[in-house]
Amino acid sequence: MSGLLLSRTFLERFGARLREIEAEPGRPVEHILIDIEAGPPPATELDRVELAFFSNDARYRRQPFIDALEHAPNLRWLQLFSVGVDPKAYPSLRARGVTITNAPGANAEAIAWTAMGAVIWLGRPFRHWASAQQRRAWDPIHYEDAPRDLAGQTMTILGVGQIGARVARHAHYLGMRVVGIRRHPSPNDPVEESHPPSALPAIVQRTDWLVVACPLTDETRGLVNVGLLSRLPRGAHLLNLSRGAVVVEEALIKALKSGQLGGAYVDVASQEPLPPESPLWDAPNLIVSPHNAAISASYPAASAECFFANLRRWRRGEPLEGVA
Amino acid sequence: MSGLLLSRTFLERFGARLREIEAEPGRPVEHILIDIEAGPPPATELDRVELAFFSNDARYRRQPFIDALEHAPNLRWLQLFSVGVDPKAYPSLRARGVTITNAPGANAEAIAWTAMGAVIWLGRPFRHWASAQQRRAWDPIHYEDAPRDLAGQTMTILGVGQIGARVARHAHYLGMRVVGIRRHPSPNDPVEESHPPSALPAIVQRTDWLVVACPLTDETRGLVNVGLLSRLPRGAHLLNLSRGAVVVEEALIKALKSGQLGGAYVDVASQEPLPPESPLWDAPNLIVSPHNAAISASYPAASAECFFANLRRWRRGEPLEGVA
Repeated sequence: MSGLLLSRTFLERFGARLREIEAEPGRPVEHILIDIEAGPPPATELDRVELAFFSNDARYRRQPFIDALEHAPNLRWLQLFSVGVDPKAYPSLRARGVTITNAPGANAEAIAWTAMGAVIWLGRPFRHWASAQQRRAWDPIHYEDAPRDLAGQTMTILGVGQIGARVARHAHYLGMRVVGIRRHPSPNDPVEESHPPSALPAIVQRTDWLVVACPLTDETRGLVNVGLLSRLPRGAHLLNLSRGAVVVEEALIKALKSGQLGGAYVDVASQEPLPPESPLWDAPNLIVSPHNAAISASYPAASAECFFANLRRWRRGEPLEGVA
Repeated sequence: MSGLLLSRTFLERFGARLREIEAEPGRPVEHILIDIEAGPPPATELDRVELAFFSNDARYRRQPFIDALEHAPNLRWLQLFSVGVDPKAYPSLRARGVTITNAPGANAEAIAWTAMGAVIWLGRPFRHWASAQQRRAWDPIHYEDAPRDLAGQTMTILGVGQIGARVARHAHYLGMRVVGIRRHPSPNDPVEESHPPSALPAIVQRTDWLVVACPLTDETRGLVNVGLLSRLPRGAHLLNLSRGAVVVEEALIKALKSGQLGGAYVDVASQEPLPPESPLWDAPNLIVSPHNAAISASYPAASAECFFANLRRWRRGEPLEGVA
């Protein structure tokens, strides 16, 4: 029997689903419960812990859970509820060879819905209406000034991963043509065309919506700069769903002010929290959200599903996913 | 040869498509062109006019077109570019038996996209983010306060016509359950359940999104009143895409102020243009647009397609659609 360390709150909420997984053939597991309010279980129980799930409910009082992990000498695998984890976190666990996994993609669905909302808000005349409403003015747009239909426009997605693929699906629903940019383009990407990053300067010339959904790396830092933005058709739109530093913020603000960009949505900033004095806050036609596009009442369930999928692999002796 | 009165601008833009229709078997048609800037064609040409299309481009200088119609003694059918037409409009044409048709549904697609944008804006935390952005505050929502996922919520649509059916499709894409309310429910309605209006008071008790997409009639005037709104679950949302007077505006404002309604979007008002002193303008959590949800750069093409479909019927001797 391998001991699985879980919070009592998690077991109460997801126990039925967990027992379904455990009823499948595979290595047997016993539950060792931690009551986050009361502190870690006794050493006799912690000695039996081989795997642990750091669930969402435990994050506001992290210390009892972390203490328990530190005092579980036979721990081999820690699954985290979160999507991203600092590679330097949990140094003492890493030092003794504990495998740490996270929940990649658990928030991708929510981020993609947020992105779709921003696309329709920016693409239909909602900004015009909101400004008229503030002036208490009944000021309809006429056909001559109507925005182009979203259907038929082209979206280019930088990074066709969990998030990018879902944004592509929504763009297709809107009737858009989707171009994917990724290091290793695949014919299976859910896009009309897939290109390597070297093609980006040419692709943006026919891009109405540029969506940043790639990780921040040496290659992507500052990728969306003055030069790239200037190659977009005038009035194009930008969404940044990834990391602030992929976009040069001064270039973004300048392009919004000049009208080169017709509008933009950024969920991320190069400095977070974004300080009150940042010029991003009141750049024209820009929606800013506080690295919060992923927020969803169903996140605890989605991250639990990532754990369950890995638990199934572990019980069968298969390699774990999301190793961080 | 039956004379078809058209604006020169329309023929320049849609002539190729028109000639496709005219190449099909059916009654032969000749074009009699009106140059809106120059005034009506001579009487010898107007005598030959049997049908006319009042296209979108002619609407800012209506009089030359209307003069031409008045002086076309053999006119039998007038197709209008617009979706709704006042049954009392064109009294002299009606008096001499001219059939008047409009373009039902030509704007339904655009209205439904607007509605979807409003649903995502109201259903995801965009209002929270916009208010934080105005305060220059990086103020994320935490899981405990996250709004419910749109997937799994229930939308009830009053009036499952051209607009309601398209809104239903979008709601399905969002993962919602859709209930239709219409006078003659049909198993073919694109909804999970279809009920007559008498079921509405019971249905609203399990409705998260109430969408008004029915015509204004004696039966629907004031249908969404204090009593009906009070039966919705607390925090539900309302969309009015039809006519202002279907919703009692005082009841709407009261429900928004009390939090009984979590948010609403109205494209229409009982008095249009809505006067500056109306309390609708600054009701909390309300989006107002100026009877403009339908605006779309593709409307001229969509209304032209309605005309082409009727022209095809007319040439075959079939009954016309959209008789107003």
